[in-house]
Amino acid sequence: MPAAERPLALTLGDPSGIGPELALSAWRLRAERGVPPFQFIGDPDFLERTAHRLGLFVPVAEVEPDDAVEVFSKALPVLPLPSGATVEATPGAPDSANAGAIVESITTAVGLVRTGRASAVVTNPIAKFVLTKVGFAHPGHTEFLAALAASPGREPPLPVMLLWSEMLSVVPVTIHVALRRVPDLLTQALVERTARIVEADLRTRFGYEKPRLVLSGLNPHAGEAGTMGTEDRDVLAPAVAALRSEGIDIRGPLPADTLFHERARATYDVALCPTHDQALIPIKTLAFDEGVNVTLGLPFVRTSPDHGTAFDIAGKGVARPDSLIAALKLARRLSASNVTPFPVRA
Amino acid sequence: MPAAERPLALTLGDPSGIGPELALSAWRLRAERGVPPFQFIGDPDFLERTAHRLGLFVPVAEVEPDDAVEVFSKALPVLPLPSGATVEATPGAPDSANAGAIVESITTAVGLVRTGRASAVVTNPIAKFVLTKVGFAHPGHTEFLAALAASPGREPPLPVMLLWSEMLSVVPVTIHVALRRVPDLLTQALVERTARIVEADLRTRFGYEKPRLVLSGLNPHAGEAGTMGTEDRDVLAPAVAALRSEGIDIRGPLPADTLFHERARATYDVALCPTHDQALIPIKTLAFDEGVNVTLGLPFVRTSPDHGTAFDIAGKGVARPDSLIAALKLARRLSASNVTPFPVRA
Repeated sequence: MPAAERPLALTLGDPSGIGPELALSAWRLRAERGVPPFQFIGDPDFLERTAHRLGLFVPVAEVEPDDAVEVFSKALPVLPLPSGATVEATPGAPDSANAGAIVESITTAVGLVRTGRASAVVTNPIAKFVLTKVGFAHPGHTEFLAALAASPGREPPLPVMLLWSEMLSVVPVTIHVALRRVPDLLTQALVERTARIVEADLRTRFGYEKPRLVLSGLNPHAGEAGTMGTEDRDVLAPAVAALRSEGIDIRGPLPADTLFHERARATYDVALCPTHDQALIPIKTLAFDEGVNVTLGLPFVRTSPDHGTAFDIAGKGVARPDSLIAALKLARRLSASNVTPFPVRA
Repeated sequence: MPAAERPLALTLGDPSGIGPELALSAWRLRAERGVPPFQFIGDPDFLERTAHRLGLFVPVAEVEPDDAVEVFSKALPVLPLPSGATVEATPGAPDSANAGAIVESITTAVGLVRTGRASAVVTNPIAKFVLTKVGFAHPGHTEFLAALAASPGREPPLPVMLLWSEMLSVVPVTIHVALRRVPDLLTQALVERTARIVEADLRTRFGYEKPRLVLSGLNPHAGEAGTMGTEDRDVLAPAVAALRSEGIDIRGPLPADTLFHERARATYDVALCPTHDQALIPIKTLAFDEGVNVTLGLPFVRTSPDHGTAFDIAGKGVARPDSLIAALKLARRLSASNVTPFPVRA
């Protein structure tokens, strides 16, 4: 079945967070905003109760993935969890009793994509502390998905987090680690592996003929020739040289602070940044509600809204579905068999 | 003499950089852009030659500070260096032979302010490597000015760098140091001293009745309760608690990545950030051409354009004077005896 005829698999996420209500909002805006067909993976009764509590009229239809696209115009298609697990959740009050259902929704979504019954995985936000209580050992969604994508007996692939928006795309080379550890984690090999995955996925999934990459420095002013930290000179510059010798269009390390204003952004397609905040600050400053988290390096497409569970506003009907809608639309675009070339920023 | 009748003292900066041509541009735009009267501290002949080379008609008048304001409408007032040092410079080719003049311009400007003959110091950009060749031991302008501001036999004051723009103001708590050193340099005492200076100067110089401060976390997501680095929990949170107990309106540590979008910016007047890039990325992303560098904690007002010497474009007449003009205007505003209250962002 071509990707265009398969639904996106949207996971439950933390049922006490804003994920379920965003799924309802996205479905209601399907015509107005061009939301592609998706199937929610979770307890249909829970989703119905969520709609009812918010005073939303959303017909929920329990269907198999093969029927989801056809149903989508009339009802929100839901695939129950294979174990039959049900969900009871209070908005804003996360409960480890739902940890099993949260994880099962993710593994089910991945299974659907890998067996060709869904075109891509779109994940609703989870809260790690809810899952660690039941032994979930992964630092986050991304690493869990990489583990699920591993071939038996093999190392899992290196998952690369791309934050995408119409204005700017960034990749944090290190992600959810203490800042103190970053200088030692940032090896030449890690920078090179990350850049190769970014370059390949930008070509094959995003349709860039020759993606233009930049790498920001680790230290202020990219270390000013080694006078403020040596990593830019001794680790990042050799990585860039090696990648360029392979034919990859990458420049750097460049001072991070002057890399994200409008004229600078026009000179590249994606910026790789050594630290989490170097990458996430500019995109969340420029595109707070529209950012999409894309995992590169996996054998399937996975996107996610660029926000968390937002327990503080869950159940109030005020959460904005913009990022989830952007994630659904981007997932569809990236998983289409014929890639539509992205406009080159200029 | 009240501040309004005294000129601003504008330093030479590196004469091979864009500083001198920006001084000419700012003077030419004095009426159109409301540039307050300034006096350039350097070699008048050099400035005349610079104007000539750029094909600009700018009359240069060698005058004492007391006459600068009166002259300003008709000519660009210049105070020669007390030593009589002259300047020969090729745009784009920095030369350590000018190091003495560069430093003397700064010390002269500070002397004028401290003796009441200028209202504030505005510094043109310097390149540290030009000065280190002649034994200049300070990490930058800011630290040098703090040393000049020290009372004899006393520790110099803690200079605090504020990057100011109409959209956002930020303070990097650590500045020009290797990222690897930041976690150890970021002590509770440093955060508290910095915040106290920011709070005091925002009240007394900027005219905020009760400035609203925020502190960003050091680690991703401000460490997520100690799971990604302990400094946010063990160093920053206690600093915030101590400052609040003194009556300072400060919140944090908050995740840095979600602190700079429009709705977040409306909730504070200044953001303190543990690292250089956390602070400089958002302001340079939002206000690349209009940012002003203000040094807080000194016994006088000092501002500076928020860019470097730009040797690559020096002498071409393409450098934008926006940041220098903003620095001159802000210096005037901050040194006025009657502070005009700044609008509260809302």
